[in-house]
Amino acid sequence: MIRADFALRHAGQLATMMPRPDDPLGRIKDGALAAHGGRVVWIGDDRDLESQVTLDGDLLDAAGACVIPGLVDAHTHPVFAGSRADEFAERVSGVTYHAQQSGERGIARTVRATREADVSALTELAAARANRFLANGTTTIEAKTGYGLDLDHEAKSLEVIRQLAEQTRLRVIPTFLGAHTVPPGVDRRAYVRSVIDEMLPAFRPWAVFCDAWCEASAFTAAEVRAVLGRAKELGYAIRVHAAQLAPGEGPDIAAELGASSADHLEFATPSQIAALAKAGTVAVLCPGANFTTHGPRPPIEAMREAKLAIAIASDLNPGTSNSESLPLAMSLACVQWGMTPAEVLTGATVHAAHSLKLDGLVGCLRRGSYADCVVVDAESPEAIPYYVGVNRVLQTVAGGALWEPS
Amino acid sequence: MIRADFALRHAGQLATMMPRPDDPLGRIKDGALAAHGGRVVWIGDDRDLESQVTLDGDLLDAAGACVIPGLVDAHTHPVFAGSRADEFAERVSGVTYHAQQSGERGIARTVRATREADVSALTELAAARANRFLANGTTTIEAKTGYGLDLDHEAKSLEVIRQLAEQTRLRVIPTFLGAHTVPPGVDRRAYVRSVIDEMLPAFRPWAVFCDAWCEASAFTAAEVRAVLGRAKELGYAIRVHAAQLAPGEGPDIAAELGASSADHLEFATPSQIAALAKAGTVAVLCPGANFTTHGPRPPIEAMREAKLAIAIASDLNPGTSNSESLPLAMSLACVQWGMTPAEVLTGATVHAAHSLKLDGLVGCLRRGSYADCVVVDAESPEAIPYYVGVNRVLQTVAGGALWEPS
Repeated sequence: MIRADFALRHAGQLATMMPRPDDPLGRIKDGALAAHGGRVVWIGDDRDLESQVTLDGDLLDAAGACVIPGLVDAHTHPVFAGSRADEFAERVSGVTYHAQQSGERGIARTVRATREADVSALTELAAARANRFLANGTTTIEAKTGYGLDLDHEAKSLEVIRQLAEQTRLRVIPTFLGAHTVPPGVDRRAYVRSVIDEMLPAFRPWAVFCDAWCEASAFTAAEVRAVLGRAKELGYAIRVHAAQLAPGEGPDIAAELGASSADHLEFATPSQIAALAKAGTVAVLCPGANFTTHGPRPPIEAMREAKLAIAIASDLNPGTSNSESLPLAMSLACVQWGMTPAEVLTGATVHAAHSLKLDGLVGCLRRGSYADCVVVDAESPEAIPYYVGVNRVLQTVAGGALWEPS
Repeated sequence: MIRADFALRHAGQLATMMPRPDDPLGRIKDGALAAHGGRVVWIGDDRDLESQVTLDGDLLDAAGACVIPGLVDAHTHPVFAGSRADEFAERVSGVTYHAQQSGERGIARTVRATREADVSALTELAAARANRFLANGTTTIEAKTGYGLDLDHEAKSLEVIRQLAEQTRLRVIPTFLGAHTVPPGVDRRAYVRSVIDEMLPAFRPWAVFCDAWCEASAFTAAEVRAVLGRAKELGYAIRVHAAQLAPGEGPDIAAELGASSADHLEFATPSQIAALAKAGTVAVLCPGANFTTHGPRPPIEAMREAKLAIAIASDLNPGTSNSESLPLAMSLACVQWGMTPAEVLTGATVHAAHSLKLDGLVGCLRRGSYADCVVVDAESPEAIPYYVGVNRVLQTVAGGALWEPS
């Protein structure tokens, strides 16, 4: 008998996301799972649960609803203060996102508001976002800094991420994004030097990943190569904001450095996509930001052809995607881009986990994985994106225990 | 002193939706309201509440969050069984909605599933939908039949709507939509005759509105004129599914009959729009269905120019818009169509109420209106569509009492 301290039973369809030849979602009909110490210790047919598992703890009855792994969001900016709702409204009337990236609006505006907020205020805001992530089925996020943009305020943002991980049930993987944009009033060469010489070494213990935005409104290819090259030397794993608003070298840099992810990629070329696939980089696509900025459709067919792994992320941020909902991002990717439900489910679990170096631990359900899963009011996992913009999550289980909104 | 049995205070911005020259939302900063017997009896500045109102009942503290009237959804199809998630997935891969309207798919499929379900099963499904409406801020819906399509099953659907109104806190306004599509295996002339001669007279006590779909895949202009003309004689108020998939006479018929609403209108012409405005008909636009079917943008500019009142509806239905969220519909109308936040807020309150002949009672907050309101975690009412696809509703108040999910 296997000892367990949590079990879930009667999952109408339990998507393990461990692909089989006949089913990319590796589903078990009328499935069950058991956990101990936060990890899955048994998974199988409901009818075998009682004979194989000794439970001393909570039993959750899914009553025929679907169960999927807790969703994994590979691109979020959860540490910020202030609102840019008016910029959303301006874009509705035709102002472009690019035109908002200067002076009083855009990222610089969020940087000002974030610098003015202290750790406790920022953590409270981020914790409210964590509640919305968990309520909408996400149990793991990548969390970027990038609204501090100097040594002290980027350190503060990393501290907020640390407290967020400590205080909430969300798994939080920290990314240092000092190279998000050049902060207002600062010489860009001096800023890049500060990122490379001061911030990168100082933050190494606090961040798993280093990210940089390669774009005309952000950093040049040379600057991004310098920042991420140094980051790699220091032992950071690499992510790149690449080719979101215009063609550029971001995807090339990601491939050169063997980045874990290249993100956005609306303007990636077929040869860049081939290079990313060869490098084992994951394409992290952000349908929410693409939607509100009226971006072009990313080259999905070229990605499929190159067998590039595609993750789907919320890109939670105050400028272009103020949404913690991966199911909404999945719906957008299906409707706007023609991705299939199976592709977006894999994208918000397995491929997202791979881009975070958490393969087999999150984004799937098997012996040894974290017991993070979501009970969803849907007739099949593939039906989740069909319920557009309405939260169908009934229960979120994080680390082998039921989560309740706080 | 005014006696009240419910009060709400500290609304950071309380949108009355009673327009003033300086503010189309008629907002009160740090506002409060009091209700008695389900109606608003006092509304004003928070600082005046205690001196003007004697409260014997619950006091809800909005703690600075926004308060808006309960949203009004002027176009929903909440009485159905079965799923069409696979049709959503097929459209992702390029199949058109029109091509799905025959044989084994489309509306006919939902008709089969709905006929097989009894009143109790259908009411349970509809009540789950009511919970999602209320959770997402909607307190009043128009509810159509249209998946029964014979005397007995349309009567059953109207009974479900009656029970839904009785069993839930949602205000439910019934619409008979026998002329939704010609049911499979039935002669269309015989069906139209049955609608006109049997169903319309039988259902008059049970439905406020009669609706018909004027479209190649549904009913001809002559058939719609016959059905809705007879409905009007019998005292029904009129709604028309008009010019959704192709140009047609639906908008003309709506204007001729002085319909309360003409719905969808993607292909309405400028002269039709002028006629609708002159007739006092409300344009009920359905961004969710437009989104998932890749419909063209409705002629918003022509509608603005004609001063045609525009309502925004969820169009909850299993084929094209399986969503009870008006905030999502509002986000879609902003992003996809360039409507402004103020336009979509007015569309989901005042104009929707007008199309349901409930002006001044729902969709606004003033002395005498129903005490239906929503506390929203947003910095302003205009920020609501900025939070795409995430439910920011903190509390729903229906009929002067807090609603809790059942």
